[in-house]
Amino acid sequence: MGFDPGVVNAYGRFAMDTYFDDVYSIDIIDINAGSHGRYFATNFDPEINFREFIETVWSWEEGQWKANTMFEHRKDWDMPVVGKSTAYLTGHDELHSMSGNLGVPNIRFWMGFGEHYINVFTVLNKLGLLSEKRVRTAEGVEVIPLKVVKAVLPDPASLAPTYTGKTCIGDLLKGTKNGKPREVLIYNVCNHKECYEEVGSQGISYTAGVPAVAAAMLIANGVWDVCGMVNVEELDPRPFIELMNRMGLETRVRDEHCDRALDPYGLVPHSVRRELTAISRLY
Amino acid sequence: MGFDPGVVNAYGRFAMDTYFDDVYSIDIIDINAGSHGRYFATNFDPEINFREFIETVWSWEEGQWKANTMFEHRKDWDMPVVGKSTAYLTGHDELHSMSGNLGVPNIRFWMGFGEHYINVFTVLNKLGLLSEKRVRTAEGVEVIPLKVVKAVLPDPASLAPTYTGKTCIGDLLKGTKNGKPREVLIYNVCNHKECYEEVGSQGISYTAGVPAVAAAMLIANGVWDVCGMVNVEELDPRPFIELMNRMGLETRVRDEHCDRALDPYGLVPHSVRRELTAISRLY
Repeated sequence: MGFDPGVVNAYGRFAMDTYFDDVYSIDIIDINAGSHGRYFATNFDPEINFREFIETVWSWEEGQWKANTMFEHRKDWDMPVVGKSTAYLTGHDELHSMSGNLGVPNIRFWMGFGEHYINVFTVLNKLGLLSEKRVRTAEGVEVIPLKVVKAVLPDPASLAPTYTGKTCIGDLLKGTKNGKPREVLIYNVCNHKECYEEVGSQGISYTAGVPAVAAAMLIANGVWDVCGMVNVEELDPRPFIELMNRMGLETRVRDEHCDRALDPYGLVPHSVRRELTAISRLY
Repeated sequence: MGFDPGVVNAYGRFAMDTYFDDVYSIDIIDINAGSHGRYFATNFDPEINFREFIETVWSWEEGQWKANTMFEHRKDWDMPVVGKSTAYLTGHDELHSMSGNLGVPNIRFWMGFGEHYINVFTVLNKLGLLSEKRVRTAEGVEVIPLKVVKAVLPDPASLAPTYTGKTCIGDLLKGTKNGKPREVLIYNVCNHKECYEEVGSQGISYTAGVPAVAAAMLIANGVWDVCGMVNVEELDPRPFIELMNRMGLETRVRDEHCDRALDPYGLVPHSVRRELTAISRLY
């Protein structure tokens, strides 16, 4: 339900470069199998959360943008740790840069939703309560319905102390290596309770926050020596993944051989190791 | 979904006096099997409509008040014209006077709801959007959520032109006559489309409005010679039913013999006939 675009961009870049000669599709899969125990709540600001699902859902299919509607396309994915998970094609920012930078003909974003979430969202949306267009009550009060919905929903921050379960976010790539078809999932798993114990936030804030901090540290320390505006998939993903591993957001890979923790360097150059060790001490 | 209490009070009174020696139970059943064709709408002012279902549902059971919650008790009824109908135990005004005036140990009010209505109602209620307690948006606007829901829902009056289907409202009485158990349904059926063609309103407004007008006419013309405040079940129900028959809201009876139009007088006294003919000409 929303996280820093950087992770899945870097995952796509790394997996393409490392495991494939050609990549035919990247399916980004974002599953929150956690439970906040409330009747209904959004994990982020409801305004941002709902807005994402009201607009046209764009996917990158055979090298072209395709317009879809929310909850139009549903697919069950077999994900590590969280198991079989139902996700829906959703529009998401990272598709826009990844489609331009990676040269992969199919890139889609899938987000996991339970039936209860979809039901509540649909009722609110159909009634016009997610509208950002001002309405006027019979008593003459002018107000934006979505702001009222936000006012009655739980504050997302209040969910963290009792949030249980896990998230799983990853890129599933399909393509070929040495002329043979291949399928690789590169992902991370986060435990809501452990995140709260470590930083006082639930897992979704954690998976959004750690990549942003890691990226900022790499830029500040010159490992990512960026002149001008770039997207994460244009940078070397290795120090980013390595630093997140050390900070607590560990990347794993599942392919035809096994499911394993990812060391993005394999045999890491000593110069880079030294630099990363220095940075991660700051954290 | 709401109608003038007078009809079912008079039906209860009339059926008790006419068809029973003893009455054990009166189940008032209010079914709207019509369709307004919108995603969701209330047939009356949403504030009044929803409020009825948020409060404790009182029923009169074995001579005592029993507290229930909304949608706790569900029952399928085999109703004339509209067929098998699912209804839920609901609190309603008329129970309060009928329980005191009729001496019947069990009086319950059942209202028909579709699953879609219940789902939308439940989502809004659980989220706190049917609350009459003021909330404050992040931007500082203070507003009552229920008033915002009202503002986004269709105006009930706008439903009438395309409303189709029928309503069925009645009292099902169980008791004994000459020592034998008996069951009688006294009811009316209304066609939304015909009501709109006749008076420009849908059937629920019609079944609420005609009894109120009929009662006012009977009082104005002295047929109901009321000194002080009484409830409808304390008055002679015959001229009321007779006048509604003539105005277009016809009462029918279903018992072990047949289903038939009700002539409340059987052999009507000429003096009363004359009076009613005079009144109904005014209409």
